[in-house]
Amino acid sequence: MGKTSHISILKNPNLDSSEVAIKNGLSQKRSIILIGHCWVEYNGRARSILEPGERILFIKADGSVLIHRPTGYKPVNWQPSNCYFKISLINDTLIITAIRKKVQESLKIFFDKLFLITVMELVDEGQFYLHVSEKEIQKAILTNPDLLEKAFQPISYEKKIEPGFIDIYGLDKEGKLTVVEIKRGRAGKGAVIQLAKYVDAIRDTASRPVRGILAAPQIMKGVQKMLATLNLDYRKIDLKKCAQTVTFTKATKIQDFF
Amino acid sequence: MGKTSHISILKNPNLDSSEVAIKNGLSQKRSIILIGHCWVEYNGRARSILEPGERILFIKADGSVLIHRPTGYKPVNWQPSNCYFKISLINDTLIITAIRKKVQESLKIFFDKLFLITVMELVDEGQFYLHVSEKEIQKAILTNPDLLEKAFQPISYEKKIEPGFIDIYGLDKEGKLTVVEIKRGRAGKGAVIQLAKYVDAIRDTASRPVRGILAAPQIMKGVQKMLATLNLDYRKIDLKKCAQTVTFTKATKIQDFF
Repeated sequence: MGKTSHISILKNPNLDSSEVAIKNGLSQKRSIILIGHCWVEYNGRARSILEPGERILFIKADGSVLIHRPTGYKPVNWQPSNCYFKISLINDTLIITAIRKKVQESLKIFFDKLFLITVMELVDEGQFYLHVSEKEIQKAILTNPDLLEKAFQPISYEKKIEPGFIDIYGLDKEGKLTVVEIKRGRAGKGAVIQLAKYVDAIRDTASRPVRGILAAPQIMKGVQKMLATLNLDYRKIDLKKCAQTVTFTKATKIQDFF
Repeated sequence: MGKTSHISILKNPNLDSSEVAIKNGLSQKRSIILIGHCWVEYNGRARSILEPGERILFIKADGSVLIHRPTGYKPVNWQPSNCYFKISLINDTLIITAIRKKVQESLKIFFDKLFLITVMELVDEGQFYLHVSEKEIQKAILTNPDLLEKAFQPISYEKKIEPGFIDIYGLDKEGKLTVVEIKRGRAGKGAVIQLAKYVDAIRDTASRPVRGILAAPQIMKGVQKMLATLNLDYRKIDLKKCAQTVTFTKATKIQDFF
């Protein structure tokens, strides 16, 4: 067993010493990578069987589990965090069972050969920041209007009216004229006032009911109350889903939607 | 560098030898696991930044990429297969750039310290089998009727009529009475005949138009033509989505849907 700072490695371990290393790693809440020849049974929301092959098993410090084949970015089997584990050695097979507490499901991984065991204590306190511009949110909603709300139909974008430009203008599922104001960050009262002005301006020209929606990933304190007072709606925008929807290819300019 | 069958390991490598090992591994289409201290920039459908921390970078033989933090079953960043890679060493930082060919997006991983590099040639030809019962497909459709088709509304299940029991009985988005016959495997002509009998039986009692849907993950040769002749529909069922939808908690018995 070679130690490299906070990483322990076992090369070509026998199954007895593998059992000990895995049990120790789990009890110390370490992350563990096992590379070896295994097969897998899953029982829970459905049942699945993975035939024998050489794979990578990744058990994280929080009790989540991933089994990766040598190709494909998705794991072939996985379990979310907070699994508990049973390790046993039966008939020359090391059996690792990951069991979920809340849901009746279990993942059983059977190893008959291990090439490498890595037990790690990783320190990771870095923040993850996702940046999506208002233009990108606008484009995402135009591409997939369900990101705003079900059955929303955009009619135009950057529609010019008296106070400025409306981000998205469309019809809701009941066919009501709808003005959408997009904010990429935590929307404040300024955004509500801006939206109210647009709704009023449209109402004057349309002489029929007009809805206003503030679309943002978050709103500041007090904004919900202000929206309610002004009879405007808030729709939470999922920035990750927007990011997944928008693709920066030359082929899809925003104009192509209309 | 220690060799364990088809796995090469570099412990605490300097960045120069890391660069060589990664380039060699990539050129030989090996799977590579890098454990070290890194930060990440993503540019593409959106932009994201991951601040420095200790993580696991997994580059697969097919050019897919995963970056895993010590917790959470989802990767913090990832790229699908067929990326191409640029490796460079600038100012004591090893920069691995994974670039997608079809979409303008790139993932840049900056390492200033590597604890372990594992380069593997894994052989995995095992098949993956997912088993979902007809009862589970039924439950999944009742939970999330969009799995069958958009805006489908179940009315009852296992409805008894003359020839037997209808799996799911409901209204389609146009409000038309709809009979659904579920098959968990590749549906054949027997399933079509069964469905046709149910539709006829319902039509006799309802004296209004009745639709029939054969819901299965696959259909046998000639079945599509037979369905068309009998004016019945086929809806492909995604077993993975069904499996994800159904949860075996005691709280959600099938009866709870009605």
